[in-house]
Amino acid sequence: MAEPSRITVLAGGIGAARFLAGLQRVVPPALITAICNVGDDLEWLGLKVCPDIDSVLYTLAGMEGTEGWGVRDDTHHALDALRALGGESWFVIGDVDLATHLFRTERLRQGATLSDSTAALARAHGIGMTVIPVTDDLHPTVVQTAEGDLAFQDYFVRRRAAVPITGVSFPGAATAMPAPGVVEAIRDCDLLCIAPSNPFVSISPLLALPRVAAAVRDSRGQRVAISPIVGGAAIKGPAAAMLDALGHEVSALGVARIYSGLIDLFVLDTVDATLVPAVQALGMDAVAVDTMMTGDEGRERVARNILHAAGFAV
Amino acid sequence: MAEPSRITVLAGGIGAARFLAGLQRVVPPALITAICNVGDDLEWLGLKVCPDIDSVLYTLAGMEGTEGWGVRDDTHHALDALRALGGESWFVIGDVDLATHLFRTERLRQGATLSDSTAALARAHGIGMTVIPVTDDLHPTVVQTAEGDLAFQDYFVRRRAAVPITGVSFPGAATAMPAPGVVEAIRDCDLLCIAPSNPFVSISPLLALPRVAAAVRDSRGQRVAISPIVGGAAIKGPAAAMLDALGHEVSALGVARIYSGLIDLFVLDTVDATLVPAVQALGMDAVAVDTMMTGDEGRERVARNILHAAGFAV
Repeated sequence: MAEPSRITVLAGGIGAARFLAGLQRVVPPALITAICNVGDDLEWLGLKVCPDIDSVLYTLAGMEGTEGWGVRDDTHHALDALRALGGESWFVIGDVDLATHLFRTERLRQGATLSDSTAALARAHGIGMTVIPVTDDLHPTVVQTAEGDLAFQDYFVRRRAAVPITGVSFPGAATAMPAPGVVEAIRDCDLLCIAPSNPFVSISPLLALPRVAAAVRDSRGQRVAISPIVGGAAIKGPAAAMLDALGHEVSALGVARIYSGLIDLFVLDTVDATLVPAVQALGMDAVAVDTMMTGDEGRERVARNILHAAGFAV
Repeated sequence: MAEPSRITVLAGGIGAARFLAGLQRVVPPALITAICNVGDDLEWLGLKVCPDIDSVLYTLAGMEGTEGWGVRDDTHHALDALRALGGESWFVIGDVDLATHLFRTERLRQGATLSDSTAALARAHGIGMTVIPVTDDLHPTVVQTAEGDLAFQDYFVRRRAAVPITGVSFPGAATAMPAPGVVEAIRDCDLLCIAPSNPFVSISPLLALPRVAAAVRDSRGQRVAISPIVGGAAIKGPAAAMLDALGHEVSALGVARIYSGLIDLFVLDTVDATLVPAVQALGMDAVAVDTMMTGDEGRERVARNILHAAGFAV
């Protein structure tokens, strides 16, 4: 088995962040590129907030909150004061977290791209891998519901993902250009991982860019997706509810069907091992390994399991 | 002696804030209007920061920092994190303080005026007096130095007021319009106080607006200035150094000369009582009272002293 020389990961938020954190314990971070979802981004009091990028950065820096978002042990003095003033406070932002958004927004205001500001944040946190937003352009995820179209955070945080959804759309997809390095990282890697992220609102926004989808199709790397659904439930977030609402089977098999034709290997958790033949019947390889990323060791073990499943020596 | 029915105060930062806090302990706050300097305002990471307005608001709300600016016992978690990221951090902003700037900036972004957002902040803090910026327009104070022109905070905070100054200018004065209510409050009051603030960078910016200067000239109220210089030194800030640098006598008399022709009564501290005849010789009344605003009681006593000196019963 060869060692991978270049690994690219299509990343959502928390699940992807944990997978990437495991990966950088197993292979040199310089070999890894994370392509991040920006569909969840929001403007909060004039500040550019990128929840998925920040989950990745904070987790790679070892400072993520215990739920996977925000900064561990962060205070909320600014937010509490804002609430007392009658200001908008439905989106929870801690004081240290706030510095990230102030820093990023200031860079953008000075003419930097989102890629530039993301790279600057990664550098400031001493992160060794390359972290790139899928696009420097606006490319929001719109959640279609019975109550009308909602911006992602409006659906996910303000409404607590409690509104039944009927679809997801990406109105910016036709015009948003992949950020510098995105297409190359996807096309020219040895291993292209689709992180255990929500297929609809984390991975679809990436694939919604035609040049990204083409690069995945043309990638010279082995294309591996890791199921975010384990035992019929999502580890984190609304993926299971979305599968159900959008008419998919709420299982790893349901996810595999979504990626059918796009990937070479689908990785399920061992608890779903009985689904392997059904996934293989979709025309892809399938393997069941332990995918539970509990703690640093769990994350490392899962990264190692995925690399082994993909045939790499680490 | 009559009770005052309407008091208007031309206000800078800390000295004015303390005077106003004393005043609202002596007369009903609804009778008082503070006209605030905006020459010190700055844009900090895209946020609108109004140091003088905020000193007034925080002091009136009883939450001012012990040095007179910022919020007492505020934390600096966001600023510390920003510094760690390599972001701009020369201007000290606490976490609770940050909420004020986020709140204000969001209002401005939504189309509110600075007056509107100031009123909203005052209301949120339960402040009973009227607090108005002198103008809703940009009206910055430029400090002229041997090193060139500097924005006020650049001079005052970043350079720690250590650069020799040669002058002060107000490039926005010709076009900035007084905010709604400013001219009326100055013209139609019983008592117009010039707070014990820096004449050059707190009061001059107000008087630099032609319609404000005219309103002061035409005011039907008694016009009283309180010396910010006591015993030849400024209680707070660079007023003494500025008097010296700009060729004025560094004393209450030096300040009185600046206001000569503009006011009816000049109030000195008792330690400067010997200057009373020289001030009177300038063609204004003069009286020496205790002007040391130490603690709530000191602020109240000074306000009472000023009102008595102006011939009002309180």
